[in-house]
Amino acid sequence: MARIYNFSAGPSMLPEPVLQQAQQEMLDWRGSGMSVMEMSHRGPHFMAIAEQMKNDLIELLAVPANYRVLFLQAGASAQFAMIPQNILNGKTKACYVNTGAWSTAAIKEAGKYCEVQVAASGESTAFTTIPAYADWRVDPAAAYLHYTSNETIHGVEFNDIPDAGDLPLVCDMSSNILSRRVDIGHYGLIYAGAQKNMGPSGVTVVIVRDDLVGLEAKNTPAVFSYAQQAKADSMLNTPATYNWYLLGLTLQWLKGEGGVVAIEQRNIRKANKLYQAIDDSSLYRNPVDPACRSRMNVPFVLADATLDKAFLEQAEQQGLSTLAGHRSVGGMRASIYNAMPEAGVEALIEFMAEFERTH
Amino acid sequence: MARIYNFSAGPSMLPEPVLQQAQQEMLDWRGSGMSVMEMSHRGPHFMAIAEQMKNDLIELLAVPANYRVLFLQAGASAQFAMIPQNILNGKTKACYVNTGAWSTAAIKEAGKYCEVQVAASGESTAFTTIPAYADWRVDPAAAYLHYTSNETIHGVEFNDIPDAGDLPLVCDMSSNILSRRVDIGHYGLIYAGAQKNMGPSGVTVVIVRDDLVGLEAKNTPAVFSYAQQAKADSMLNTPATYNWYLLGLTLQWLKGEGGVVAIEQRNIRKANKLYQAIDDSSLYRNPVDPACRSRMNVPFVLADATLDKAFLEQAEQQGLSTLAGHRSVGGMRASIYNAMPEAGVEALIEFMAEFERTH
Repeated sequence: MARIYNFSAGPSMLPEPVLQQAQQEMLDWRGSGMSVMEMSHRGPHFMAIAEQMKNDLIELLAVPANYRVLFLQAGASAQFAMIPQNILNGKTKACYVNTGAWSTAAIKEAGKYCEVQVAASGESTAFTTIPAYADWRVDPAAAYLHYTSNETIHGVEFNDIPDAGDLPLVCDMSSNILSRRVDIGHYGLIYAGAQKNMGPSGVTVVIVRDDLVGLEAKNTPAVFSYAQQAKADSMLNTPATYNWYLLGLTLQWLKGEGGVVAIEQRNIRKANKLYQAIDDSSLYRNPVDPACRSRMNVPFVLADATLDKAFLEQAEQQGLSTLAGHRSVGGMRASIYNAMPEAGVEALIEFMAEFERTH
Repeated sequence: MARIYNFSAGPSMLPEPVLQQAQQEMLDWRGSGMSVMEMSHRGPHFMAIAEQMKNDLIELLAVPANYRVLFLQAGASAQFAMIPQNILNGKTKACYVNTGAWSTAAIKEAGKYCEVQVAASGESTAFTTIPAYADWRVDPAAAYLHYTSNETIHGVEFNDIPDAGDLPLVCDMSSNILSRRVDIGHYGLIYAGAQKNMGPSGVTVVIVRDDLVGLEAKNTPAVFSYAQQAKADSMLNTPATYNWYLLGLTLQWLKGEGGVVAIEQRNIRKANKLYQAIDDSSLYRNPVDPACRSRMNVPFVLADATLDKAFLEQAEQQGLSTLAGHRSVGGMRASIYNAMPEAGVEALIEFMAEFERTH
């Protein structure tokens, strides 16, 4: 079968050149006689791969020098616990903004370690809006302010960076990192699972400002101490080496595409086209406030939900895959991360129009 | 360059047929139009891959029905913390046997969560022996007894299963799982990073008896709760999907080789040949008590340490790679896991003899 357009929310499409290079190098990485996944993580080959990968990420995100860049395991969900364990620094409260399912999960987990003050919540509008900054209640005595820059399930995305006052600003960027320009210098800490815009699942990027490193609670597991991982350059124990390699190939691809500036323009075009097609139709509807519609995850419902099954089946037949919405909200969802070509979005729009004409 | 023999302690050699299949399926897994690493972990393709992999592991290890089999992230080092967090069950003490560097690391981490009683230690013999069972001091009031069945750095391996009395027996099997027959029914919990005998790094197998699931401390991170991961079939959050797939391919390969019974015979032959060559020489020496020499990791020193550099360089030139001992102990180490062919061990022996003749 030919390659399909895969609209999965993550793990998700990877650039074809990345897969081709991984395929070519599978049994012998550049004359080493080994697959990357067979290499000692402390050997010269893998050390070179790791260094290139880290430097490319620093370059692409323009990470300032006073930040540590870590590559950890166990997903962004592990960070939900690691963040309070590492940066509460003896304080008893943290502020969280709730804009959807992933904020909610972060809040629930943080509650194990401190009092959580929900500074603002979109719950009253079923997470179709981001509460106005003027209404946020941020406690200056809290350890930090946490928010989720893009909600994959609800399709809500921040278009600017909230002002956290003197608090360290902490952000879950799992689903929009590297998809748009962002000034890392505004943050105390950002984190992101790789499986949307950076590579396969199994590696989580954490970028943390120096002053927040070394504050962990005494019983924090060693592998979850930012300080210990920073000191060991994320090799306190064996890292997920092949995942690092694929992350590195994806970053190389992104650099070749023109970096974050260029991919952001493409992502804007892709999202605008798809939202326009939805708004122009009478069959499809996206419920999110246009001011905070996600460029990455486009949820939509059909006016007649009995057509959902036919929509998904016919889409699948045309090589448009994994368009079902998250089981918690139903409907449809098109995830259109960096690696989704514009042609994929156009094929989806064409299919949607044809489906509307015939139903 | 041709494929080499890679004696790395982990990540380490994988069976060539595994790499070939991964290469072939890289851009399109069995007509799905996707790479495995692009698949939603909740989609039908990946669910089938995951189920097959889990069933193959259960079959190969003959895991009894009253055990849960989990595939987690963050390495065996994460288990050093997760085990006390999950199974202390309100008790304040755990017993640990110290047979080398990895036992020592487990003991250090457990000390964050409870009093650690070292039931026995090989430290007085520089970890070249396993203390006689009669001398072990196991406290029946402890929550569990932990040991490391194979020490990768010191090259010490248990040849039978210690008697833990009424305590749950907990074992780090990272470096000898699936290399020899073992009766899982003797254990409360076993765990193993994949990167020696099961696949690439990035996934950790945990096999835990039902009665030890659900006892975790209240502030245990969700992703580190055996109960929550068991309930979610290790998909509480996005798993390391491609690593699961490669683990699955490696298990399929092992089944094709005749399973654990057949590979154990091959491993015995490989280890016996190499130890014999060392013992017969006057240049090489292995310091470990023959009763507990590891079949997986064979450390040895040269009588004249000034020859180390020449030994490593000439070995590398002949495609015998990563033979340097761990930086903490020096000398040489040949790791000869399941995927190391007998021909690789023979090539090493031949090289060692030739090197001895000419130096």
